[in-house]
Amino acid sequence: MAGKRVAFFGAKGTFTHLAALQFCNENKDLQLVNENFIRISEADKILDENKADYCVVPAENSTGGMVNDTFDLLIGSKLKVLNEIRLPIIQNLLSKESDIGMIKSVYAHPQSLAQCRDFLNANLPNAELIDASSNAVGAKIAAERKNGAAAIGAKILSDVYDLNIIRENINDSSGNETRFFVVGKKSSAKCAKHSIILFALQNRAGALYEILKIFNNYNCNMTQISSRPSRVKNWDYLFVVEFDTLSDSEKNQSMLNEIENKCVYYNCAGMY
Amino acid sequence: MAGKRVAFFGAKGTFTHLAALQFCNENKDLQLVNENFIRISEADKILDENKADYCVVPAENSTGGMVNDTFDLLIGSKLKVLNEIRLPIIQNLLSKESDIGMIKSVYAHPQSLAQCRDFLNANLPNAELIDASSNAVGAKIAAERKNGAAAIGAKILSDVYDLNIIRENINDSSGNETRFFVVGKKSSAKCAKHSIILFALQNRAGALYEILKIFNNYNCNMTQISSRPSRVKNWDYLFVVEFDTLSDSEKNQSMLNEIENKCVYYNCAGMY
Repeated sequence: MAGKRVAFFGAKGTFTHLAALQFCNENKDLQLVNENFIRISEADKILDENKADYCVVPAENSTGGMVNDTFDLLIGSKLKVLNEIRLPIIQNLLSKESDIGMIKSVYAHPQSLAQCRDFLNANLPNAELIDASSNAVGAKIAAERKNGAAAIGAKILSDVYDLNIIRENINDSSGNETRFFVVGKKSSAKCAKHSIILFALQNRAGALYEILKIFNNYNCNMTQISSRPSRVKNWDYLFVVEFDTLSDSEKNQSMLNEIENKCVYYNCAGMY
Repeated sequence: MAGKRVAFFGAKGTFTHLAALQFCNENKDLQLVNENFIRISEADKILDENKADYCVVPAENSTGGMVNDTFDLLIGSKLKVLNEIRLPIIQNLLSKESDIGMIKSVYAHPQSLAQCRDFLNANLPNAELIDASSNAVGAKIAAERKNGAAAIGAKILSDVYDLNIIRENINDSSGNETRFFVVGKKSSAKCAKHSIILFALQNRAGALYEILKIFNNYNCNMTQISSRPSRVKNWDYLFVVEFDTLSDSEKNQSMLNEIENKCVYYNCAGMY
């Protein structure tokens, strides 16, 4: 059997790239392909055009929260979540310079700058902090500008952009983690530990309560709930719920049937 | 009485700037001050240092969803939401060039690029689309680079960066709207139409259900619910709920008391 091809969102050297590498390392018949895409919404097209079998996209950061574009991707397509990858987020200070005393400016994604605020205040109080649209863009700018420019991000950026690692592990708090989804066209046959459903309800008091009542009746543990703009006028609400799949698969299915019956839109978007 | 001072998040020419202007126009004793801030989390400091009486921050876009940093600001501070401003989001193509045929590149926030994708595909199929950390940054780059560079954003950007408006109203779908919060140190005394509460629950099946049961018992309409990373380890969940305040204020308070009793963390973050 030929290996399955894995594409990932964003530029080389991002945490999503790292997550895709980890996914490939854990599964021998997988190979990373050079079909990275710059909008999460493009995953659908990559898979449709058969340029990859799986796409890796960020789903949620433990402090930054949900990645809205990923949930919108699931709403707007037939893609299924097939796997989840959890990655510790460890930030590093990277530059063409080799001494922290030379750093005059730091280019990074606002979320990364925020995660390293205490470090930056203590060690680079006079450096200019400049938002970049991604850490990979920040690393590219730091590599091109030289002259005291630094970036923040995964160690792998130092290989991709030929930068020195000036300081390792500069996050203010340890334990920061991002989870990524592996999405694909076909749902896996097996029953997995976690499930994700998307649904829309009529806009009236108590509509969501009735759904949660069903979860409660089945003693099912929800792990995440969010309301999202529906993008379609006649749906008033759209919810994304992740929950621990019930070990009894028949029971699980009858719970989902009860939920579906109460929804104006319902989509079981995968198990992982 | 001296006028109250209003600061806003982000650079001049953003939609938040527009929202702040609208807020000042609607309230005669308000004046915009030149204390705009580049991280939403800094609103707390601006108010603490008495550099402004109110700060305007984005809360939610009708397609892009919640602005996580704003809800995290409410979690991490004593700030209260005092008002809500709703603004239609109308995008325009801006450039030093005056003819759309001259445009080779477009710099804008990824969300703005996404909102104008059909327009860009139809009218600028060969232009390079480049992410900027905000539309104001995109406009600044377009103004500096000239040579076929364009930006996307509010009309006000054409004044701030001396750009021509090449095409008006280029969003693919009309009706896109962003709501903004006005936050301040003191909550207003009067009872307002909408309320926002933040709370954390024990991590067990049914915990959220019990809260929604209370809303349901009082026939109270929730307008938004999200789970957010708690940023504190021993809270397992943190929820943000917005709801229509009950017209009977005694009833409203007893509903909130019942909810608070079930929470490990509870914060009524304002009425608006």
